[in-house]
Amino acid sequence: MAIDFEIDDEVAALAARTREFVRDVVIPVELETGGSVHDGDESVRRGLQDAAHAAGLLAPQLGREWGGLGLDMRGQSVVFEEAGYSLLGPLALNCSAPDEGNMHLLERIGSPEQQGRWLPELGSGRARSAFAMTEPAPGAGSDPRALRTRARRVEGGWRIDGRKWFITGARGASLFFVMARTSGEPGDAGGATLFLVDGDNPGITVVRDLDTLDVGLFGGHSEVEFRDCVVPDGAVLGEVDRGFEAAQARLAPARLTHCMRWLGLARRAHDIALGYVAQRDAFGDRLANLGMVQQQVADNEIDMAASRALIRHAAWLLDTGRDAGNATSMTKVFVAEAVGRITDRAVQLAGATGTAGDLLLSRYWREVRPFRIYDGSSETHRWAIAKRAVTARRTAGEVA
Amino acid sequence: MAIDFEIDDEVAALAARTREFVRDVVIPVELETGGSVHDGDESVRRGLQDAAHAAGLLAPQLGREWGGLGLDMRGQSVVFEEAGYSLLGPLALNCSAPDEGNMHLLERIGSPEQQGRWLPELGSGRARSAFAMTEPAPGAGSDPRALRTRARRVEGGWRIDGRKWFITGARGASLFFVMARTSGEPGDAGGATLFLVDGDNPGITVVRDLDTLDVGLFGGHSEVEFRDCVVPDGAVLGEVDRGFEAAQARLAPARLTHCMRWLGLARRAHDIALGYVAQRDAFGDRLANLGMVQQQVADNEIDMAASRALIRHAAWLLDTGRDAGNATSMTKVFVAEAVGRITDRAVQLAGATGTAGDLLLSRYWREVRPFRIYDGSSETHRWAIAKRAVTARRTAGEVA
Amino acid sequence: MAIDFEIDDEVAALAARTREFVRDVVIPVELETGGSVHDGDESVRRGLQDAAHAAGLLAPQLGREWGGLGLDMRGQSVVFEEAGYSLLGPLALNCSAPDEGNMHLLERIGSPEQQGRWLPELGSGRARSAFAMTEPAPGAGSDPRALRTRARRVEGGWRIDGRKWFITGARGASLFFVMARTSGEPGDAGGATLFLVDGDNPGITVVRDLDTLDVGLFGGHSEVEFRDCVVPDGAVLGEVDRGFEAAQARLAPARLTHCMRWLGLARRAHDIALGYVAQRDAFGDRLANLGMVQQQVADNEIDMAASRALIRHAAWLLDTGRDAGNATSMTKVFVAEAVGRITDRAVQLAGATGTAGDLLLSRYWREVRPFRIYDGSSETHRWAIAKRAVTARRTAGEVA
Amino acid sequence: MAIDFEIDDEVAALAARTREFVRDVVIPVELETGGSVHDGDESVRRGLQDAAHAAGLLAPQLGREWGGLGLDMRGQSVVFEEAGYSLLGPLALNCSAPDEGNMHLLERIGSPEQQGRWLPELGSGRARSAFAMTEPAPGAGSDPRALRTRARRVEGGWRIDGRKWFITGARGASLFFVMARTSGEPGDAGGATLFLVDGDNPGITVVRDLDTLDVGLFGGHSEVEFRDCVVPDGAVLGEVDRGFEAAQARLAPARLTHCMRWLGLARRAHDIALGYVAQRDAFGDRLANLGMVQQQVADNEIDMAASRALIRHAAWLLDTGRDAGNATSMTKVFVAEAVGRITDRAVQLAGATGTAGDLLLSRYWREVRPFRIYDGSSETHRWAIAKRAVTARRTAGEVA
Repeated sequence: MAIDFEIDDEVAALAARTREFVRDVVIPVELETGGSVHDGDESVRRGLQDAAHAAGLLAPQLGREWGGLGLDMRGQSVVFEEAGYSLLGPLALNCSAPDEGNMHLLERIGSPEQQGRWLPELGSGRARSAFAMTEPAPGAGSDPRALRTRARRVEGGWRIDGRKWFITGARGASLFFVMARTSGEPGDAGGATLFLVDGDNPGITVVRDLDTLDVGLFGGHSEVEFRDCVVPDGAVLGEVDRGFEAAQARLAPARLTHCMRWLGLARRAHDIALGYVAQRDAFGDRLANLGMVQQQVADNEIDMAASRALIRHAAWLLDTGRDAGNATSMTKVFVAEAVGRITDRAVQLAGATGTAGDLLLSRYWREVRPFRIYDGSSETHRWAIAKRAVTARRTAGEVA
Repeated sequence: MAIDFEIDDEVAALAARTREFVRDVVIPVELETGGSVHDGDESVRRGLQDAAHAAGLLAPQLGREWGGLGLDMRGQSVVFEEAGYSLLGPLALNCSAPDEGNMHLLERIGSPEQQGRWLPELGSGRARSAFAMTEPAPGAGSDPRALRTRARRVEGGWRIDGRKWFITGARGASLFFVMARTSGEPGDAGGATLFLVDGDNPGITVVRDLDTLDVGLFGGHSEVEFRDCVVPDGAVLGEVDRGFEAAQARLAPARLTHCMRWLGLARRAHDIALGYVAQRDAFGDRLANLGMVQQQVADNEIDMAASRALIRHAAWLLDTGRDAGNATSMTKVFVAEAVGRITDRAVQLAGATGTAGDLLLSRYWREVRPFRIYDGSSETHRWAIAKRAVTARRTAGEVA
Repeated sequence: MAIDFEIDDEVAALAARTREFVRDVVIPVELETGGSVHDGDESVRRGLQDAAHAAGLLAPQLGREWGGLGLDMRGQSVVFEEAGYSLLGPLALNCSAPDEGNMHLLERIGSPEQQGRWLPELGSGRARSAFAMTEPAPGAGSDPRALRTRARRVEGGWRIDGRKWFITGARGASLFFVMARTSGEPGDAGGATLFLVDGDNPGITVVRDLDTLDVGLFGGHSEVEFRDCVVPDGAVLGEVDRGFEAAQARLAPARLTHCMRWLGLARRAHDIALGYVAQRDAFGDRLANLGMVQQQVADNEIDMAASRALIRHAAWLLDTGRDAGNATSMTKVFVAEAVGRITDRAVQLAGATGTAGDLLLSRYWREVRPFRIYDGSSETHRWAIAKRAVTARRTAGEVA
Repeated sequence: MAIDFEIDDEVAALAARTREFVRDVVIPVELETGGSVHDGDESVRRGLQDAAHAAGLLAPQLGREWGGLGLDMRGQSVVFEEAGYSLLGPLALNCSAPDEGNMHLLERIGSPEQQGRWLPELGSGRARSAFAMTEPAPGAGSDPRALRTRARRVEGGWRIDGRKWFITGARGASLFFVMARTSGEPGDAGGATLFLVDGDNPGITVVRDLDTLDVGLFGGHSEVEFRDCVVPDGAVLGEVDRGFEAAQARLAPARLTHCMRWLGLARRAHDIALGYVAQRDAFGDRLANLGMVQQQVADNEIDMAASRALIRHAAWLLDTGRDAGNATSMTKVFVAEAVGRITDRAVQLAGATGTAGDLLLSRYWREVRPFRIYDGSSETHRWAIAKRAVTARRTAGEVA
């Protein structure tokens, strides 16, 4: 088998249908709403997901046995980019964060009971879920070991107490994935456990909604308190004290699917900017003919090409069961910074118009900014990449 | 006289008082309002300006004969940076865009009647003004020669017809400075005239408000239509057909005062981020001790130092009557990009917190973005700088 | 067939042998010579190529019928990176510029006679060749249409007159590929023809050797004069007046193989720097543990990963007969700039030592610099990429 | 006293004469020698310095009582930039590293005997000096505290033993400034002493010359061994065990004068590139009219303006006795990186020609590269800048 970038016919067809669907169905809703769904308007979500269901496009990443389309990561890399071409595309296809990653995690390490109860609900969009890991300072942030939320043994189960924030889609979620410390102290490398908690558990309180730069994730980001939140033994996802390892199974693919979706949005921004410079004149020439414009256009093209190539390589590693931690880290850093550059250039190319709401460019520019921070900041990933590089060099021995 | 960076005692004292005033009076209002005044809430403006008046800080740039403090550009460079430390500081001191530049223009080229009528009103903050130059495509934008708004001779005056947008503070303005073509065709290098138009002229309609990235300029940015807008002969500011030259008298200093104010805001963002990294731990160390954090901190410091040095040099050129066009262009490009970098690093340094509204970092990051576009985009200024450099080289003759 | 990054077993084995060969045979020679072969010392070349021949590694890119190993571009992308790990690796394997590209061109468009005469000679290293296209100002440079060298019809053939420079390996070459204008005038888009000229043709004079930044290409770069250089009709390579099209068949793969080799050299620089920071202490810690060091290490890793992914994608396009012009342009720009950054960071990581000759870092840093200029400058490629992007956008129609 | 960028008439006149001298006398020698004086050809040095002496331009920085022109740092900032316009200008004016900084140090902390013996010799160019601080790993490098060279008490003086490298101008130097540890252990913050050692001391051996990127400093950089190097008590410069403090008195101004000279060279590179793009055509237009060319030209102009403004500010701080450590660090980082960018763009602007020796661009590009490493690497300075910023923030208290 040789290096190959050919896309399966089936995947290509699905991507083409996704592209049409986004153009014909999703973008009109995006333009109407400004792509803003952080207030969690269920009618918007239902409308989009019903249409995607009718088009046979719902949950492309989910296993067929759970009602999805069964794409592997490589297939997702093609289709998610098309979905991401609108801020609301991933929501429409039900392959948006955090549900997409949560379903993936359930498929990977959930018990048959957990899978049977939740995957059909989540896959169909009847239920939504949240992933509750990040904590306010001095809790778990870039450094997950700082985890402070506690789960203590109680009769027949566990009692969870702690505070989380930046919990996407918390308001209205039917299911929470909660990371809590079951042993050790903040700063220890292990001792975490993942729990599945029903959204209507009285121990859960959404304290407030955060006013973040991005507004395109359904329900926005909230601060959530867990107090006397009692769950049964069956709520443990994976194994007790192995929560960080379980989260790893989610994080590497989740950061990659983010890259896929954001690449789609960056392409959209670029296309809008291209449309602008292809029509506007200044200084006696078409903008598209000016060298400083061409430089930005070309840099966008190059950034997209490199992003796509890195994504596909990492997807292949994951699909074939290889160690993809380093590749997804490198891809995440590159793509997060590339989509920042691309949307920034797109704003610049469209001039004053790019800063106003008439085009969605400034919205996209804002929307992708947090990606350099969440799912591991660029600094955290660079630190991990460097550590691995030095270790690998030491192992490899001398260089002349 | 030798190179000297000493600050006059009087200016230093004024800067110190401004710093205190901003800290004690302005920042509390900024935190309450989120720095958002694009809806033009007059009670906020009045409250701040009354306080500044009481503190003897109002209109530091305006001539003493008109009720201001009479600072030259060098003095402004010191005081405006302090004012800019809060998004609302310049509004409070009545040295914000567009009024500050408009007053400057009136002082420079207004007739005694025009000055007498408007400067006391504007200087005291009883009236506000707008500068109406930019037009929707294919009108005047980066390239002012594309000007399409027309002023035609009528009995005893002129009739202005055209459409403008990105007109800051248009809603509620008592006075409009309107650039209109009095001869020639769009694309011609001359033929423009500046008019002073009363805000209650029935020929002015604020068509809509633009939803821009920035929200810190009072009244925001609007689209304005001039239709059958008749003004008397005395409305001409400066000379007929010499409007572009008149605007130049405004533009060079106006872009420099923008730099001063934004430098102040960048310093604020940096200080907030410094406060964050000095208190938060991760990976077993204080954030402020991590090398990748230190790099960003140092780069912010360097960017601020270079910005300040460039600003002061350009201010000196203006104060001493030298040709400052190239220096203000270079300063504008550098500072606009530097404050973008500084606020971006500040967001990054504060991690997830930096992307949320709890700190004002993401607000500042958004707020400074358009500055790379307005008052001449970075590309337009670079083009002009390069042209001058090549011409100068040709004049200088051969290099070995 | 799905996206696949698997490397053929055969190619992987060849790459492994190349890696060993470079480590055991080539690098010792590189250290001895400082990688400097621009003086064209044939004993060095012969020694290396004889060893490669003995190891079964000679001419990996050449068709098996001509004595090579028959790798396609994807296979080359793997093996050339290993060869490039030493400045002298490509010379040793006889896959260095310009011979590698020249053989490729002969295989693509040479007549059976031309192939039979030259490919065994070149493939075995018995002969070397040069590609004479670039001319001193105001001739063909970034813009090939400026071509001034003329070939005029004479009895039974052509007479070539003109001046070329930056002709790599001209001194001692047995064969010149010469681009000359057979119709039209400088500035015209067509009218060029490629000729094969024997190195001992009395009409060829190597005028002088250029003192360039790079010293790792055999024989260096020379200025060459063609005067009354008469060749027979059979010297035409491809078709008369279709020389630019013929050159295109060479240029896209040639710029890609450059990328492959330079990526190898960048990896070498990175490995040397890694070895340095893994062993040196400063400020009470190992250099490799300092954040600003880790950032540079990580950025090198990311730059290499993105370069490799882009190269393999473009190689796949070429292998499968797709249009690869844009992909090779984007790859060339990215890789040329990436290897510049990587070698620059490597120098910086090794501190003062990096600037001295004890390590080869500063040599590599110098060596890759011209790659941002030759084979189409970054600016020229960006211009072409932007033109294609705008055209494609116009074709695709409206974006919301 | 207000902010002022006016240049004293006297300084301006001296700068103008320096400019002419460099153009008429120095550049011809530079073109002949390629600016390469690392082999220490005394006839070149003598010729240039005799001419400068005749022109009344020798040792502009040295006190008048020692035969110099007595410029303060601000005056030097103007004149040194002019001198630096040729690689050999500073050598000609005897204001090159390391002599310029060494004379400065002697003026600052030398005893009357030391000054009287050496300053007339050094100032007139009859003698040259070297500064021996940096050591091979694991000795003093970025981190001076790692100092390993020892000076032990002997009868009537000290015996110095140790190894130094990157000692500029060591070969042929009449005087060495040697930093040696007189107490404590490597890693300790204090315990260093500076000694003046005659060049003919038998305890000094120049072991080898380093093959560095730069070739423009007279005599190049050598590795030097001190063995049984006995000096009298009077050889101590400043106080015993206070050598690091003494070195600081040299380092801050010395790094600033480097900036001044390199800014001059960057300006030269820029001028050469400007001359090139103003004369060459491509793609049917003058290069100077292409947007991507203009961008690089403008960025060079901006980088030079910011460098100059930072330098003058730091010079003023030093002249007025203020703490300039942070300002010179920031200036050094900015200017070192700026001149790297400027020379890199200049090479790019001149295309293939820029990589060859016909112009001196590639020489300048190489020459300035080590400046990001020596006199404190960019990383070391950034670390120091960040530490100060965090400390200052902590002192200043809360920010809203």
